[in-house]
Amino acid sequence: MHRLRARLRAAHAQMPPVNAPYRPEGLLARPLYARVDAGAVAHNLARLRAALPAGAPRLWATVKADAYGHGLARVLPALRDADGLAVLHLDEARACRRLGWRGPVLVYGGLYSQADTLLLDTPDLHLVITHAAQLQWLAQSPAAERPAVWLRFAGDIHHTGFSADDYRPAFELAAGLAARGLIGEVGHLNHYARADEADGVAAADTLFRQVINGLPGPVSTSNSAAVLRHGVLAAGTQWVRPGLALYGASPFADRSAADLGLLPAMSLHSQVVGIQRVKAGAGVGYSGAFQAVAPMDVGIVTCGYADGYPRHAPTGTPVVVAGARTRLLGRVSMDMMAVDLGPVPRAAIGSPVTLWGADGLPVEEVASSAGTIAAELLTGLSARVPVAQAGAGPVR
Amino acid sequence: MHRLRARLRAAHAQMPPVNAPYRPEGLLARPLYARVDAGAVAHNLARLRAALPAGAPRLWATVKADAYGHGLARVLPALRDADGLAVLHLDEARACRRLGWRGPVLVYGGLYSQADTLLLDTPDLHLVITHAAQLQWLAQSPAAERPAVWLRFAGDIHHTGFSADDYRPAFELAAGLAARGLIGEVGHLNHYARADEADGVAAADTLFRQVINGLPGPVSTSNSAAVLRHGVLAAGTQWVRPGLALYGASPFADRSAADLGLLPAMSLHSQVVGIQRVKAGAGVGYSGAFQAVAPMDVGIVTCGYADGYPRHAPTGTPVVVAGARTRLLGRVSMDMMAVDLGPVPRAAIGSPVTLWGADGLPVEEVASSAGTIAAELLTGLSARVPVAQAGAGPVR
Repeated sequence: MHRLRARLRAAHAQMPPVNAPYRPEGLLARPLYARVDAGAVAHNLARLRAALPAGAPRLWATVKADAYGHGLARVLPALRDADGLAVLHLDEARACRRLGWRGPVLVYGGLYSQADTLLLDTPDLHLVITHAAQLQWLAQSPAAERPAVWLRFAGDIHHTGFSADDYRPAFELAAGLAARGLIGEVGHLNHYARADEADGVAAADTLFRQVINGLPGPVSTSNSAAVLRHGVLAAGTQWVRPGLALYGASPFADRSAADLGLLPAMSLHSQVVGIQRVKAGAGVGYSGAFQAVAPMDVGIVTCGYADGYPRHAPTGTPVVVAGARTRLLGRVSMDMMAVDLGPVPRAAIGSPVTLWGADGLPVEEVASSAGTIAAELLTGLSARVPVAQAGAGPVR
Repeated sequence: MHRLRARLRAAHAQMPPVNAPYRPEGLLARPLYARVDAGAVAHNLARLRAALPAGAPRLWATVKADAYGHGLARVLPALRDADGLAVLHLDEARACRRLGWRGPVLVYGGLYSQADTLLLDTPDLHLVITHAAQLQWLAQSPAAERPAVWLRFAGDIHHTGFSADDYRPAFELAAGLAARGLIGEVGHLNHYARADEADGVAAADTLFRQVINGLPGPVSTSNSAAVLRHGVLAAGTQWVRPGLALYGASPFADRSAADLGLLPAMSLHSQVVGIQRVKAGAGVGYSGAFQAVAPMDVGIVTCGYADGYPRHAPTGTPVVVAGARTRLLGRVSMDMMAVDLGPVPRAAIGSPVTLWGADGLPVEEVASSAGTIAAELLTGLSARVPVAQAGAGPVR
């Protein structure tokens, strides 16, 4: 019995080390985990730098949404060469500080209320300012720290930001506060609705440049798509702020991450936990969304929509089983999904399954099949999925 | 300045208490949070009991996926009257024990490998068995505890489980192990592919009853949909195992939770953080997925797909702003979405927004608009969304 215990423990030890809070005694029951490779993030950062002139513009590494689902603490060591970090809100900025980041932090969400000025307790904050009340709140801030501000132009995306008519009055107000020492430098920020398209930014950039014409201060306009597709334009700004490409996903429908020289930072792995031989005409999954047209072997994989795998993924979505590419069958359920074992005749219970991010299956391809984008899948990885950290260096 | 600080702190104190790990000094910057009402779960449990004969069948409360996204620790006090808890895997069963649950625990995923027998270290476990190797692993288990087993029939869903041909041999094997004291009682479990449909279970149940005809042991077949739509059938089993309805969502396309007497246990709340007056012809959001046909006021709400709001939700998806029902515009982005302020002329920055689960906006309706089901939205709530706990009693 002692020997059996030792053998079983050794079998568990073959699972990667994970950070699951519930993982008792180093054991992990369910064979589903994500792997995050901080080395890939470092590689992708260098790749983005290489797409820009040496030395300028400076680069904010966008780490909002817990570093696009990869874990801020996990990827931060790979971002040492970034000039700054970009987050959504001030609690995230504080998390960066707690993890030891001493450089600039850009806060996309700026201030949500006057009370948020209480959170301005760390130096080198840069707040994105999207409406005039935020400037008034800053003017009355009780905090000793005086953040830099970036006025956001509403641009062609019309999410937050100042309209063309309101932009210059906002700048005058901000410049007045800066002159009185109530805030730091005033910059100009734009975000494109169509940076992924070849002709997607020219008109929007022309309008933005008209709006800020003659105004002093640094400029930031470019996300991953703009850096990689509109490099000349990005090179003419003072700061870029890529996100998605840092994590190794392509922002383009027509160019893969591999084409762009990016390495995926997250992969998702599971196992076959059941095999069904179904008869012709049998349904598979809820509502019989897939019907077998002939007898076939169906593999059951322990991963479902509660893990963050998209329920919109239809029959045909690619899945890799024991190294062979095959397809999803029927409707993804909460904890499992069915796959076609026709192309994997040697599949058995325990066969490894790659759901995205390795073995030639980019997360972008799964996202596209499910009618969405890679960023939704990466940020949607569930907290119930344990994460294994790959070695410091790139793994492929 | 001291007064201002006190006033700002008081403003923050109006936000609900949340459990965000990063929440410093009781402050919360971003005004997005979920509210979980354990009292509603207790109400829904009683409602499910009332749909069944008094005393039988017994009821497993399904709490897998961290209690469908509501938080196991948060809802467990509301489940005192359940006869057992049902989870996906053995790590979750241990979490139930750590939280003080002493009753039976059903493990849907059973054993993933022989090594999992090391985790059988707590009494009153019930394992769902889906293939014969699991019985061999149990026969060799080094653990002192001898779990009950439930043989799962593949049924009409063809996920995990034994085929009609393999079921009786599996039962003979299990009964032999039970006779030798290597496992506990042997039960029979089925799961329907179409329990939500009025005529969805009759054929599947007839086949299941043929397969188990004459075999001793308790029977469990019914999830929420089966309990609420096929109550007579559920009443003839020994255990039911509802999940979704406990959390106050309807499993039916044609009957609302209110019709069923269920109370939503989770609601999602945010605020308007920006207002854009857009011109006719202007695009809103990425790729200009919405185009204004006339000048209009657009509200920007801080909630996006990285929070778990579905990116598939199209223009027209209902949203409640300042108590008024309005609609989503364009494509949901990672951190924000746009809404039509036409029906909410008094909206201002800071206006409250309900995204689901309160103010007459069921999560099922948002899910349906996004082409999915309530369970995907509830389990998909992101770890970055802080959760406020409502009082012990039902709130409406």
